[in-house]
Amino acid sequence: MTKGALALLIHGGSANWSPPRWRQRFLKACADRAVALLPDDPVEPADVHYAAVWKPQPGALAAFPNLRVIFNLGAGVDALVADRSLPDVPLVRVAVDDLTTRMTEYVVMHVLMHHRQQLYLFDCQRQRKWEPRTQWAAGAIEVGIMGLGTLGQDAARALRAIGFRVSGWSASRKTVEGITCFHGREGLEPFLRRTNILVCLLPLTPDTRHLLDRRLFAMLNRDSPLGAPVLINAGRGGLQVEADILACLNDGTLGAASLDVFEKEPLPADSPLWSHPNVILTPHNAADTDPDAISDYVAQMIAQFEADGTLDNVVDLARGY
Amino acid sequence: MTKGALALLIHGGSANWSPPRWRQRFLKACADRAVALLPDDPVEPADVHYAAVWKPQPGALAAFPNLRVIFNLGAGVDALVADRSLPDVPLVRVAVDDLTTRMTEYVVMHVLMHHRQQLYLFDCQRQRKWEPRTQWAAGAIEVGIMGLGTLGQDAARALRAIGFRVSGWSASRKTVEGITCFHGREGLEPFLRRTNILVCLLPLTPDTRHLLDRRLFAMLNRDSPLGAPVLINAGRGGLQVEADILACLNDGTLGAASLDVFEKEPLPADSPLWSHPNVILTPHNAADTDPDAISDYVAQMIAQFEADGTLDNVVDLARGY
Repeated sequence: MTKGALALLIHGGSANWSPPRWRQRFLKACADRAVALLPDDPVEPADVHYAAVWKPQPGALAAFPNLRVIFNLGAGVDALVADRSLPDVPLVRVAVDDLTTRMTEYVVMHVLMHHRQQLYLFDCQRQRKWEPRTQWAAGAIEVGIMGLGTLGQDAARALRAIGFRVSGWSASRKTVEGITCFHGREGLEPFLRRTNILVCLLPLTPDTRHLLDRRLFAMLNRDSPLGAPVLINAGRGGLQVEADILACLNDGTLGAASLDVFEKEPLPADSPLWSHPNVILTPHNAADTDPDAISDYVAQMIAQFEADGTLDNVVDLARGY
Repeated sequence: MTKGALALLIHGGSANWSPPRWRQRFLKACADRAVALLPDDPVEPADVHYAAVWKPQPGALAAFPNLRVIFNLGAGVDALVADRSLPDVPLVRVAVDDLTTRMTEYVVMHVLMHHRQQLYLFDCQRQRKWEPRTQWAAGAIEVGIMGLGTLGQDAARALRAIGFRVSGWSASRKTVEGITCFHGREGLEPFLRRTNILVCLLPLTPDTRHLLDRRLFAMLNRDSPLGAPVLINAGRGGLQVEADILACLNDGTLGAASLDVFEKEPLPADSPLWSHPNVILTPHNAADTDPDAISDYVAQMIAQFEADGTLDNVVDLARGY
């Protein structure tokens, strides 16, 4: 085999990131070249042309002098972008439909749970109380989505199909059919002033870090049957100020929150978020990646790159996503 | 005013069925005629041409000798059809989009909660455990919808838009784009053999009473990442055998259930369903009716009836829906 080798660097932090499972899939998808799961499998560093990574150790990629492309196996590239020793080669964000549809599942389910007062209904069930509250229709609620990339646009489409009003905000100007779009710093306040349920799918960059704070929550719209607004963050933990979320839940600035991401992950066992009655917490599994779909995508990108030198979804390192 | 009066007979059993609230809406929607909320408001029985009802006392409608049309304010007409003293005039089922979209909200949310292992994730949250399980994509799950009327078809459309595979079953033959349809007794088993999550939206008739029993649950498909199949019933409590549901949940024939309706409502406080760890229970509020939309629909139907003698959505009393 003379084709450049593929190195796998995977931080196996959860059920979905079992390194041997990923090796097995990549061996199948890239059957025409050597695949080495580091640090277990032997490989000559100079033979490695491609790296497929998930949360690699900072500096680990600098070991390969002939590296041509880095593939990030999840959606967020913030940790890689922050690595100053990252080799100067294209960084590709995997963009498979599978990831998008999973995020849409998460967003639709959590918006519906808050809209339909499901935390109250679970509480009634625990107390054996048959006490339905008046329920409004989806059209009474405006969902505001921060981040109008592939994920945000697909979630907007699905929410509209169920009857919600949807608006969106993004760093740069975007146009999405059927939703009212805002952008930039000056677009943020008018966007928030109409939003009853805020869904955050932003990438983490120096500009967005800690954006979800008390000042932002205080601008959300309270004039809906829901009353106090709701926060749903499935972007990155670094986008949020958890102390502000807790304080705003406790003083009524926020009515409830669904959080899939946290400033520190796993969320420390002593965080008050775990037991807050108005918080639905999930262990960063909103949009798990499917090894089959991802490894096929990487193999296909490598074939395209070797055929004509092009790559899709290359990260803009200056922009950060 | 010479126009025939409208009598309102409303059993005010829950937050959404506050009789004064309904009177207020009907006074506005039918401003051109007398509206009487019984038994509070005075009305000459012979003046009553129309009745708008929700769970009236059996026999109560026989008091109006000049009754022309009965409007049922909710979706289910089983109780009225069973009333042998029901006057022989058209019975109209209100069919407003609002009711359909609310049922779709319920179905999508409950299918997603089971698909995404939300009961397990709530349990993890209570125990402060960060232990994501492998999550499969919606395309790995086949949702089977029993009842392919307006409600079933809309729910099917929304579930497909999220990525689920969907099939359907109805008493008589139906064709719905994008979903595999089965019908009749002979179509039931092949439908169940492929279904991982069963959603029941059937009307209650002598043919469908107690259809959801152990024999039916045992035919559901267990060959999906979900493992044991799931039951979601938002049709009528009379469709289900609750003792069988409990026994099947306990022996693993069913993995979980979402129930909005019960054999007896309100569900008695001593029912073991309230505290079963794999049951999500809601107080018959899957598709609340909006007094504005409903009263406008009734006023519009009366206008159409007085103009040309026609009515939409007249119940077939022999069929029972």
